Amino acid sequence: MNEKTILQFERIFPGIWRARVCANTDTGGMGTSLTAFYKHEPRTEKLDSLPEAGFPFDGAPGGEAFCQSDGDAGTVICLPLRLSERLYGLGLNYQRLCVNYAARQLRCDHYGGQDNGRTHIPAPFYVSDRGYAVLIDTPEPVSFYMGSSVRRDAVNPPPEIHRFREKGWSAVTPAEYVEASFAAGGCDVYVFAASKDSKSPMRDAAARYNLWSGGGFIPPKWGLGMWQRVSGYADGEDVRAEAAAFEEHDMPLSVIGLEPGWQTAAYPSSLDWDEKHFPDHKSLMAELASKGIRLNLWENFFISEKSTLYDPVSPYCGSHKVWNGIVPDLGSPEAVEILSRHHKKLAAEGVSGFKVDECDGFDGWLWPDHASFPSGLRGITMRAIYGAVLQRMQDDAFRSLGRRTYGLVRASNAGAAHLPYVIYNDCYSFPQFLTGTASAAFCGALWVPEVRDASTPREWARRFALSALSPILMLNAWASGAKPWKFPEIEDTIRSILRFRQSIAPALYNAFRGWYEEGIPPFRPLCMDWAGGASEKGGELDDTENPYSLGELLDVTDEYLIGRDLLAAPVAPDSDTRRIILPPGEWYDFFTMERVENSFTREFALDEIPLYVRGGAVVPTLGEDGALVLRCCGREGEGIIYDDDGESFGYERGEYSLIKVIFADGRADYTVESHGYEPGYGDLRFVFSRD
Amino acid sequence: MNEKTILQFERIFPGIWRARVCANTDTGGMGTSLTAFYKHEPRTEKLDSLPEAGFPFDGAPGGEAFCQSDGDAGTVICLPLRLSERLYGLGLNYQRLCVNYAARQLRCDHYGGQDNGRTHIPAPFYVSDRGYAVLIDTPEPVSFYMGSSVRRDAVNPPPEIHRFREKGWSAVTPAEYVEASFAAGGCDVYVFAASKDSKSPMRDAAARYNLWSGGGFIPPKWGLGMWQRVSGYADGEDVRAEAAAFEEHDMPLSVIGLEPGWQTAAYPSSLDWDEKHFPDHKSLMAELASKGIRLNLWENFFISEKSTLYDPVSPYCGSHKVWNGIVPDLGSPEAVEILSRHHKKLAAEGVSGFKVDECDGFDGWLWPDHASFPSGLRGITMRAIYGAVLQRMQDDAFRSLGRRTYGLVRASNAGAAHLPYVIYNDCYSFPQFLTGTASAAFCGALWVPEVRDASTPREWARRFALSALSPILMLNAWASGAKPWKFPEIEDTIRSILRFRQSIAPALYNAFRGWYEEGIPPFRPLCMDWAGGASEKGGELDDTENPYSLGELLDVTDEYLIGRDLLAAPVAPDSDTRRIILPPGEWYDFFTMERVENSFTREFALDEIPLYVRGGAVVPTLGEDGALVLRCCGREGEGIIYDDDGESFGYERGEYSLIKVIFADGRADYTVESHGYEPGYGDLRFVFSRD
Repeated sequence: MNEKTILQFERIFPGIWRARVCANTDTGGMGTSLTAFYKHEPRTEKLDSLPEAGFPFDGAPGGEAFCQSDGDAGTVICLPLRLSERLYGLGLNYQRLCVNYAARQLRCDHYGGQDNGRTHIPAPFYVSDRGYAVLIDTPEPVSFYMGSSVRRDAVNPPPEIHRFREKGWSAVTPAEYVEASFAAGGCDVYVFAASKDSKSPMRDAAARYNLWSGGGFIPPKWGLGMWQRVSGYADGEDVRAEAAAFEEHDMPLSVIGLEPGWQTAAYPSSLDWDEKHFPDHKSLMAELASKGIRLNLWENFFISEKSTLYDPVSPYCGSHKVWNGIVPDLGSPEAVEILSRHHKKLAAEGVSGFKVDECDGFDGWLWPDHASFPSGLRGITMRAIYGAVLQRMQDDAFRSLGRRTYGLVRASNAGAAHLPYVIYNDCYSFPQFLTGTASAAFCGALWVPEVRDASTPREWARRFALSALSPILMLNAWASGAKPWKFPEIEDTIRSILRFRQSIAPALYNAFRGWYEEGIPPFRPLCMDWAGGASEKGGELDDTENPYSLGELLDVTDEYLIGRDLLAAPVAPDSDTRRIILPPGEWYDFFTMERVENSFTREFALDEIPLYVRGGAVVPTLGEDGALVLRCCGREGEGIIYDDDGESFGYERGEYSLIKVIFADGRADYTVESHGYEPGYGDLRFVFSRD
Repeated sequence: MNEKTILQFERIFPGIWRARVCANTDTGGMGTSLTAFYKHEPRTEKLDSLPEAGFPFDGAPGGEAFCQSDGDAGTVICLPLRLSERLYGLGLNYQRLCVNYAARQLRCDHYGGQDNGRTHIPAPFYVSDRGYAVLIDTPEPVSFYMGSSVRRDAVNPPPEIHRFREKGWSAVTPAEYVEASFAAGGCDVYVFAASKDSKSPMRDAAARYNLWSGGGFIPPKWGLGMWQRVSGYADGEDVRAEAAAFEEHDMPLSVIGLEPGWQTAAYPSSLDWDEKHFPDHKSLMAELASKGIRLNLWENFFISEKSTLYDPVSPYCGSHKVWNGIVPDLGSPEAVEILSRHHKKLAAEGVSGFKVDECDGFDGWLWPDHASFPSGLRGITMRAIYGAVLQRMQDDAFRSLGRRTYGLVRASNAGAAHLPYVIYNDCYSFPQFLTGTASAAFCGALWVPEVRDASTPREWARRFALSALSPILMLNAWASGAKPWKFPEIEDTIRSILRFRQSIAPALYNAFRGWYEEGIPPFRPLCMDWAGGASEKGGELDDTENPYSLGELLDVTDEYLIGRDLLAAPVAPDSDTRRIILPPGEWYDFFTMERVENSFTREFALDEIPLYVRGGAVVPTLGEDGALVLRCCGREGEGIIYDDDGESFGYERGEYSLIKVIFADGRADYTVESHGYEPGYGDLRFVFSRD
């Protein structure tokens, strides 16, 4: 192997360092950075106001961080690791959270049922419970060895133990380094650290990464309502009928999503309105808007010969077709500009956002890894940036109109926290949906556990309840045409879940404000804030199930935190009971406002949603009368309730309002701070918990 | 993408062509060939005697085979494909056989529950039902796109159809080419074709490939008996007790396998006998041999500091350790020579063979892909050759002693048909074990569906029955210490299955002769000989299970052929009944000798093993009295019964015997041809089928 070069880290913000690894300094630029293709500017002001932090690799027992480069053929980055560390991240995972000892070749792909590195978000990024995070900023697929690969020159090699003649043998031999390798000569390595006194070091390290990524975003308020995707066969009249049916059933509806059938060609796509089936799409959108309903359009970016985009974009497309469509080169500014103009037009006509399908992969129909593109990007690197560049392109189109968007996408990557998209896929496992809702935080992203179908009313209700506690509450009925009232016997339950979602919108909005202002993921696993929930599963030898007697760290994967103060614990579709684990401290039932134990098991009716409030918190909710109801939990505490116009980018320019609340012993005081925006709620009421 | 270069194929044998793709002709040699690391010499004489065949790519509608090379950075090979073709292969698969439209990045790894390219045998090889096979001979991991990637410059692009507004849309857009790509500048491409009049074109194309690989092998006769692996904690006395227990239970035993505990160090391994627990291993082996029992030793090749091999091999090891052991560089002739000397010594002392564990992968503990080795091979390419080079090294050690070996290994690769090893792993799914037994033929390999455990007596019996119809009948009780008589209530059933295995040994031996002489895989799927068994499953839209409405070709995966004349259809562990499908023509029940229908469903008792004989065949079996019982099925037919000394390499020098049988209407004639070897059976009896 080639010479070791000690990585030279320079401090670029408090608690953020960068080392440039570049075999060929002539090339530089975009080719060596993944995030440069789409990332927003770091939140410089925020970052500069954070406390400094110690460099996490100082004094590592195994030595300093280093790299070994083989010119343009390959690079290995070695990052110190201590024995006791727990590591998280490496893309969007659905089953387990801790990635210690994992070896993963990250690449953009649909989730195939295994957390094996093929992921919708192949972010070359991980977080350590020692309070730091690492980003290997390259568009090449990165292979990570999370402390599993012991080097021959290790300073502290593990001891040799005879598996059958001595005690204490383990199939795991811990290494002093995380090793990351990729097939190119250069990249930037970033390290993000939490300050020394952080109580949630993983969360705070990840938050600096998110602020460096541009901060999180605040969705438009309509994005937090109910989304319904209609059948791919629907035409304009069907859409009107859908809106009317929701009204008739007295169910709130905020977004209608059109599937591929809105276009003149689909698979490949034209991205042009089909005037035959949607003869008046502009007035249709105006009509819907008058009822508070927005339109979202399905897309993929394999362009049909029938598209108005075909001729202009054709010179900037790759060597292979997908579903008979040509594939725009998203490394080409010309291609991005052509798509951007088109999306600006669609947005200006009234479209609220897009569902960007099939940009993740599924090898059997995406372009091959060796496909070539005019910009010089190869198929495999194009795949790494595709979803994120499309998000950025669309976000920019809406930004130019001064309107926020909120969309769905199947692929993203590192450094995309600021892009207002939520990941979805074709999986439909409830436990994996639940875990994904939490674990997306480890890549600075959001995940939607959408509702599609159910075999029982109970499953239907439990799935709606999970979706109601997620970034988007959505029924995706593109194939089945299902409605929320599919099971008449629980129509009331579903209606109450949809209204519950409306009632917690202010709390979700507050959580997103933390995402934007502080980089704190609005939905995140317990372990990100609190390490105490995990349990160790001992490694019992079993010749058919566990021949290597491997132990496991079982993090809590069926609960998650929302914002600073809420904890959700959705009930499984086949169950009426579940165990709830709450971190140390006081917790209150969101609905009854009664104090609960930190660990208990109980039954939940179909309309009961396990949601808990941290003691000392003020949770803003919306009363049925439109009043802002502030739920104060515990004997005393405080809270800040954020609001803005919910549509524009005024909030980025400082136009928002804060209601600052202090409460104690059943009495509350508050002040309103208006920064160029008056809070939009009606009356203001306080509700206090009962201890 | 770079310029297309038409591949220049030269005929090297009848029906075999090679095109050399080499960007850098200076390097050449081993670095550009996978199989050169371990392959045997082609069976020149056999190959030259085969009829010529038409070059399969002549007149392909999409154009000629070509490559595009990007210097040492990458190569794409494009091989013509017709719409109607069915493709098979791409490594050892356990679930489906047909690989049309698959995109697979092949790499050596354990089977993780999905046929996704990570496989014990990442052979860059496929077979077409048009009667040809292709090998991309490179040690680099190859990505295959099996007709799923449509190029923009396609001559016959598929039509555009609106998914929701027209009929006939399909998620699959068939391409004119198979595309194969890898990250290096050169390789050899081989094409193997069946002759024009072949009735089983896939089988015959694969057979030429196997003969090119050196032909299959004939195992030592003891290899076809019962194998029992003892607990890893066993010492010499335990081994004696094990042999005695089999005698006591009147169960045949041919091989005892020792697990890691035979060594002074294990995980990492010393590969040195532990004299404390095996103080007299040489006399132990002699004792066992006197009872007809051989010893097989478990190994992995991560070398302990305590090993006598450590100092000599240390200069020829890689940059990383595995389980605290150093990793010999198998691209280094010095390292291979050191290991070879050691194995020759172990073999000379009486060991019959080895079980080579953990050479396949499992990323979490193998060396990383970027590991470096003194020979210049990188970790990822080392992984591709590791298992096959170890097989070759051991086979050579036994060859130098004039004795055949037969062993177990977890990894192999293309062109290894001549190496006398059977693949195993940690999976324990019965249907996947069954499919693997058949599908291994598509990479010129063998698979063992070993018995490890069972939760019911029925499962125990069904698993033994499957293993009895496989390359090795084995109980692998290394962890549980289980014995065949684990369930006393079916001890008689298990005994009868073990004896059944003894009785069919001559038939299996005959099948292996076809493997050696003709390259015909002794165990292979029905579709290799007969295309008619497959069924199409229509693609029904299902938003949770099949959102792309994909159809499937369902080959028969739960039956397989043994040699030319037998068809096995093992019964599932949780079932008493199964459906049997037999190819066109007459078939007979092996046991009752009665004619059966070509398709039927029936019940099978635990000691009934669904095994069928082709009409017109003569199947050699061993009677309980030691007589050679020749089962003649149908009104008339013929057969050739092969025999040799079962131990030496005399058969390769032409020392064997053939009994040639012709039968009709209940009468048979035979002649014996002895080529320096007299058939070793006692009496000879004929049994005739009843129509």
